[in-house]
Amino acid sequence: MNPPVNAFAHHPGTVPAARIAALREEIATFNTEYCAVLDRGDLETWPLFFTEDALYRISSRENTDLNMPVGLVYCEGRAMMHDRAVAISRTQMFAPRYMMHILGTTRVESEAADGIVAQTPFLLIQTLVEGPSTLHLAACYHDRFVRVDGRLLLAARTVIHDTEILANDLVHPA
Amino acid sequence: MNPPVNAFAHHPGTVPAARIAALREEIATFNTEYCAVLDRGDLETWPLFFTEDALYRISSRENTDLNMPVGLVYCEGRAMMHDRAVAISRTQMFAPRYMMHILGTTRVESEAADGIVAQTPFLLIQTLVEGPSTLHLAACYHDRFVRVDGRLLLAARTVIHDTEILANDLVHPA
Amino acid sequence: MNPPVNAFAHHPGTVPAARIAALREEIATFNTEYCAVLDRGDLETWPLFFTEDALYRISSRENTDLNMPVGLVYCEGRAMMHDRAVAISRTQMFAPRYMMHILGTTRVESEAADGIVAQTPFLLIQTLVEGPSTLHLAACYHDRFVRVDGRLLLAARTVIHDTEILANDLVHPA
Repeated sequence: MNPPVNAFAHHPGTVPAARIAALREEIATFNTEYCAVLDRGDLETWPLFFTEDALYRISSRENTDLNMPVGLVYCEGRAMMHDRAVAISRTQMFAPRYMMHILGTTRVESEAADGIVAQTPFLLIQTLVEGPSTLHLAACYHDRFVRVDGRLLLAARTVIHDTEILANDLVHPA
Repeated sequence: MNPPVNAFAHHPGTVPAARIAALREEIATFNTEYCAVLDRGDLETWPLFFTEDALYRISSRENTDLNMPVGLVYCEGRAMMHDRAVAISRTQMFAPRYMMHILGTTRVESEAADGIVAQTPFLLIQTLVEGPSTLHLAACYHDRFVRVDGRLLLAARTVIHDTEILANDLVHPA
Repeated sequence: MNPPVNAFAHHPGTVPAARIAALREEIATFNTEYCAVLDRGDLETWPLFFTEDALYRISSRENTDLNMPVGLVYCEGRAMMHDRAVAISRTQMFAPRYMMHILGTTRVESEAADGIVAQTPFLLIQTLVEGPSTLHLAACYHDRFVRVDGRLLLAARTVIHDTEILANDLVHPA
């Protein structure tokens, strides 16, 4: 595979080590709350992790590498996320199942006036009731965080997934 | 799925950010030792991670969500854990296999006089000799830690598993 | 399984808690860069994470437990790693696929004049294009880090894998 030439390409880290440690901890705290909310199915709380005009996308690594970050989910602004969350909650047509995020280690890339850029790989494990657990999604959060009233919020989160996913799964935020 | 209404329901975190970071590190250190001991099969050391009268349980997420935290493993006190560990060690009837815990990120929920409440999701990976590795268990530690002589010990650990597990697997601590 | 009696056996940690936390963060930063480089297929950058005369090995847990740490990959020195990386890059014969490392929590074992000893379990997830993601490797980094010009480098990394791996997969560094 050739080196990627897109907005989500690897950029060497530019943050001093001690600052990375502090930011990684802060992001870990953010992400554990984010995942706890999604894993218990509380979709209507999910938009509160974003700024009012944040961008939320889900896109495949293949498209991203081709610099065509087009995915089946594109939300611009918290209101659009909220609409989607409500729609999903009310038209749940899935078989009962449990979801669990397993977070890998966050890579802190940069910190500047417009926010903190970081990536966190994760696995999403799905368990159908009385069934085995399976690896539903291997993906990575590509994030830009901003600080609002002292706490982190997502200004942009792009979920770049390695796993091929079918359109009907995509409606669910990850 | 409706919001859970049980003792293991989600509670918003109440600990200041800097304190969360310190506690998460301390819990990470605890858990890496705990998992290293279990993953090398040293079951008789396992009870030493608990207080004398600690509670250890394994329960399914389904039962827990129904507020029926009944599982196939229930140990009250280190002596009961020790008996179980010795029994398993001496009657090993499993095919040779390797176990490996992969810990997700710890969520620190609260810190009070009666201890530190935290959750850590994890995967337990099983490898039969000369076979592939499989996802044996997707689960989460629901813990209450206390500090004894300056170091953390578990006052209560409930392993809440998403994965359906068979009775004969349950004898093994996770 | 009997307790292992080899160089990679479990040794109780000897580092004070606050120092463990600082080292774990530093190692996490190192490993996120290491894995980002491998996961984007940049094999030629890979040797730069090692000292000039470092040791890199891949060995099965079974062989390691038998105190026969013989594996299919053995590189002594950065030059040998570089040769291997170039050879693999130029003779890529695999089907297109994505690799993703999911790092578990680092266990910091000791810090002494000759380096920092630590272990980090990880999963390597493979995704064939337009296919599902599968658990390719469950393994653990057994590392000795040294500090060069203020930053960490690997003086020795042994990848000890639970998963049985075929010879033709082994050529790829993990």
